[in-house]
Amino acid sequence: VKPRRPTIGVFDSGMGGLTVLGALVRLVPEADYLYFGDTARLPYGSKSAETVARYASGAARYLQQRGAELLVIACNTASALALDKIAASLSVPVLGVIEPGADRAATCTRSGKVVVIGTEATISSHAYQRALAQRGLEAREKACPLFVPLVEEGWTDHPITEQVARIYLDEAFQTGGADVMVLGCTHYPLLKTVLRRVVRPDVKIVDSAESTAEAVRQRLHLQPWTPSSPGAERRTHPRFTFFVTDSVEKFRRLGERFLGFAVEDARLVDLEQEAIAVR
Amino acid sequence: VKPRRPTIGVFDSGMGGLTVLGALVRLVPEADYLYFGDTARLPYGSKSAETVARYASGAARYLQQRGAELLVIACNTASALALDKIAASLSVPVLGVIEPGADRAATCTRSGKVVVIGTEATISSHAYQRALAQRGLEAREKACPLFVPLVEEGWTDHPITEQVARIYLDEAFQTGGADVMVLGCTHYPLLKTVLRRVVRPDVKIVDSAESTAEAVRQRLHLQPWTPSSPGAERRTHPRFTFFVTDSVEKFRRLGERFLGFAVEDARLVDLEQEAIAVR
Repeated sequence: VKPRRPTIGVFDSGMGGLTVLGALVRLVPEADYLYFGDTARLPYGSKSAETVARYASGAARYLQQRGAELLVIACNTASALALDKIAASLSVPVLGVIEPGADRAATCTRSGKVVVIGTEATISSHAYQRALAQRGLEAREKACPLFVPLVEEGWTDHPITEQVARIYLDEAFQTGGADVMVLGCTHYPLLKTVLRRVVRPDVKIVDSAESTAEAVRQRLHLQPWTPSSPGAERRTHPRFTFFVTDSVEKFRRLGERFLGFAVEDARLVDLEQEAIAVR
Repeated sequence: VKPRRPTIGVFDSGMGGLTVLGALVRLVPEADYLYFGDTARLPYGSKSAETVARYASGAARYLQQRGAELLVIACNTASALALDKIAASLSVPVLGVIEPGADRAATCTRSGKVVVIGTEATISSHAYQRALAQRGLEAREKACPLFVPLVEEGWTDHPITEQVARIYLDEAFQTGGADVMVLGCTHYPLLKTVLRRVVRPDVKIVDSAESTAEAVRQRLHLQPWTPSSPGAERRTHPRFTFFVTDSVEKFRRLGERFLGFAVEDARLVDLEQEAIAVR
C-alpha cells in the first residue's frame, strides 16, 4: 500500500523560513511542500501585531486554498504576535515555532534559566518568556536587530558579526546561570558557527527550526526517517512549490543559502489582487 | 498681503524621509507639510522596481488627494526605481532626491569623480550613475546595506558602525580620485559624524536631503529664508500632518531622532482598504 503523501504548507515573511523547510525536508521527506515567502512585505519584525496578523493570515489562507493540510508558521514574529489569529482564520491545523523551541529548551536545561534571542518584535512580545514560564523556566530575552541584516549581507562568519554577537550576548548572559540559548529567529541558524564561538561551551544552543521540524514529524505520527525505511527511495523526493510576493529571481538566488539546495519552482503571487478578486 | 502657504507632500517608505522634511522645514518654513511614511511595507530597498512603483504611487496619490500641491519623493529607492511612474500617476509636480544630489555633486567636485553610497536597490538601479554621467561625472557606486539597520539600532556613533563604514568605504574609494561622496539614502545623514571620520578630509559629503530641500525652495521661487524676512514670525510655524501605515506610537517615538523635533499629529492609514474603497 502506497501511503498518501501529506502536503505541508510553510509560511514566512521572507527567506528565513527556508531554514525550517530545510530541517523539515531532512526529518520529514515523505511529504510535499508549499512555501510562502511574503518577500514584498518583509520584514515583519518591525511591524505591529495587527499588521502581522493581517498579512500572515492572508498568506496562510492562500496556502490552505492551494492544498496545505498542515501549516507551519515558520516565522518567529508571526508565531509570537499572531498565531491564534492565524489559526482562527484556517480550518487546517497550525504549528508555530515558539512552542517547539520552548519544549526543546525545557528538555536541555539543568539550571532552568534560558536566554532567548530574536528580533525586536518577537522579543518585545514576550511570547518565549510566557512559553518558557509555562514549563517552569526563567527566560532572559534579548533583541538582536542587527543579526538579520548581517546574515543578509552574507557576513555569517565575519569578525564584525562576532563583535556584534559579543555585545548582544555579553549583555544577555551577564545576569548568569543560563545554560541554554534559544535561537528565536529563523535567520539565526546561519550564525551558529559565530554564536558557538561567543557563548560558553556548556551553553546548549536550541535551533527552533530543528525543534519545529521534529514537532511536525510527531504531529504526523511518523517514525524517524532512515534510508532503510519502507519506500525510502520514493520518500527522498518531496515536491516543492514556492510562492513569493516579490522578485522570484532574487528569491531563487538567495534561497539556496538558507535552504541548502536550489529553489526551482518559484511563482510570483499578488495577495492584494487576490483579496480584491475574492471580494 | 498674506501670501497663500503652499502644501508640500513628502513621501518615504518609513522614517528616513524625515531627514528631508527636517531640511525642508529649515529652508522652506513658509509651507505646510503632509508626510507619508509607508512603515508597514518598509524597507523598499529590498523590493523589486514593480513593487516599489505600485506602493509609492498609491501613497503619492493619497498625499495629492489630501491637498499636496508639490510632491517630494524623499526615498532614494523610490526616486531611483519609480520616479517616472509615480509622476505619471499624479497631476501635481514631483521632485525626487537623485537629481538634486547629482546637481550638488557637480558643483562640488574638482576631479569629476564621485562616490555614491546607498541601499542595494538604489545602487543596483544605477540611477545616480546615470544622473552623474549626464553632468559629465564619473560615479563609483557602493551599496552599504548595514547602514540603515545600524541607524535603526541607534548605533549612529558607535565603534562597530565606524568599522563597517571603513570596510564599505575603503572599497568604494580604493580606485582613487573621488573628491565627493553623495549620501544616497535618507538614513545616512545620521551617520555624518562617523562618515566624516572615515573618509579623507578633502572629500566633500553631499547630503541629498539638504540638496533636495534647496531644489524645492528654488522650484517654489522662494528667497532664502532669514529671520528678518516679511512675515518671518508666521513662517516659523508650519503645520505638519503625518500619515503612516503601521504603528503610530512607534513612528512618534523614533521619528524625533530623524526629524530633530517631536512628531505630533500622526495618523494611521490603511492604503489597501483605501484602494478597495475606491474601486
